[in-house]
Amino acid sequence: MKYLLKLSYLGTHYCGFQVQPNGNTVQAELCRATETLFARPCAVTGCSRTDSGVHAEEYYATVAFEGTSSVPCERIPQALCTYLPEDISVSAAWRTPDDFSVRRAVSGKEYCYRIWNGRQKNPFCADRAFFYPGTIDTARMTEAGKRLIGRHDFASFMASGSDMEDTVRTVTGLRVERDGDFVCIYVSADGFLYNMVRIIVGTLIEVSEGKIAPEEIPDILSARDRMRAGRTAPAGGLFLHKVFISVPEGIV
Amino acid sequence: MKYLLKLSYLGTHYCGFQVQPNGNTVQAELCRATETLFARPCAVTGCSRTDSGVHAEEYYATVAFEGTSSVPCERIPQALCTYLPEDISVSAAWRTPDDFSVRRAVSGKEYCYRIWNGRQKNPFCADRAFFYPGTIDTARMTEAGKRLIGRHDFASFMASGSDMEDTVRTVTGLRVERDGDFVCIYVSADGFLYNMVRIIVGTLIEVSEGKIAPEEIPDILSARDRMRAGRTAPAGGLFLHKVFISVPEGIV
Repeated sequence: MKYLLKLSYLGTHYCGFQVQPNGNTVQAELCRATETLFARPCAVTGCSRTDSGVHAEEYYATVAFEGTSSVPCERIPQALCTYLPEDISVSAAWRTPDDFSVRRAVSGKEYCYRIWNGRQKNPFCADRAFFYPGTIDTARMTEAGKRLIGRHDFASFMASGSDMEDTVRTVTGLRVERDGDFVCIYVSADGFLYNMVRIIVGTLIEVSEGKIAPEEIPDILSARDRMRAGRTAPAGGLFLHKVFISVPEGIV
Repeated sequence: MKYLLKLSYLGTHYCGFQVQPNGNTVQAELCRATETLFARPCAVTGCSRTDSGVHAEEYYATVAFEGTSSVPCERIPQALCTYLPEDISVSAAWRTPDDFSVRRAVSGKEYCYRIWNGRQKNPFCADRAFFYPGTIDTARMTEAGKRLIGRHDFASFMASGSDMEDTVRTVTGLRVERDGDFVCIYVSADGFLYNMVRIIVGTLIEVSEGKIAPEEIPDILSARDRMRAGRTAPAGGLFLHKVFISVPEGIV
């Protein structure tokens, strides 16, 4: 049997989604909880990797196991929540065909990067927003961001050392919104390279600081050189905000 | 010299404000930070005690020390922030007369109790809101809450074992607000007994559940018996929201 699960998690205490040899992960916790609930070995597959300390407001994973379970589908979210720690929650579950692939079902994702732009640090934002007390020029950031939208080679916006060969992605949206002392940067794309959003945010911050001009963005893209883009913003401000997923007809 | 400090903190990792023999406290952290900044022994006094795990969006404390300091007053908040952990922040500082008492200057406080009323637990609310998935009848809570407003003996709403003799307090406001899946209960008073807000919230939840009628509140008050009120809501949902403070003319 296979189920699709919708979940959310606070990433602060995890080394990302994917199981790691050292350190606890969301996948490991999900595996433990599903194996307790279904009382047999379970294979958990996530819709994307997230880095250590990155959060997910929306995330999809499948759990597959041999044989059948008597747990009614509508009871699965609450039952899993009781087995999961406080910082991981399952909100929905659907039965899927055995050949359903959550990776293939995802057509895109939207990340939100939160910046706390107050004058002093905010205790309620530790590990949940990047504290940046300087002036933020959202109009200038938006100007630069527009130049990232579209199908481009984002090699300059990928962490050095990544072995990804195809670095072309389509950024479908990028907007900068101020809400009081918070500035949120939303980036949606068909896929993301390693650290791509955090490097985009770091670059937009340098645009705001006047170190990079919005007009330089096309050159930075065509350079395919990580050194040309800005710094990498910290993980704690990054939230996987939305997952664009198409589920097959067979799903119940 | 004496300074009045305005601060905020996330209470999750502290055994309340006041120094405890076992476990770290906000006062201990403030003491360490001020002694580092002013390079001498410092006496830190808080405007109120808060329980273990309770948060403060607004809090006032004084720091007093012998002699004078060359640190400009306007630099103190940022300097202290660098010496304090991520979950404590100082946002303002004022020089006060040496005989200024922060306890006497406070005429009242407002607490906010946050309830996460979604169907499933919310990972971003762990230790920051009380997860209560049942139906909440805010109108019925408000009906009961009205009967708590005014000058009453709140002995029934004080943790058993407290040695406070004068249990008369004036609740100046109590309102229940729904904001999406959050329900917030605001309680303001000239002073609070030990666990008073958490017992008020637990009682209002039992009112919502139909276990207590709003009309019973006057009887519960006059009984002066902790057993008559509802259960104690968990600490993590409680925020010291506002402190009503009057500062003397001499303050600079």
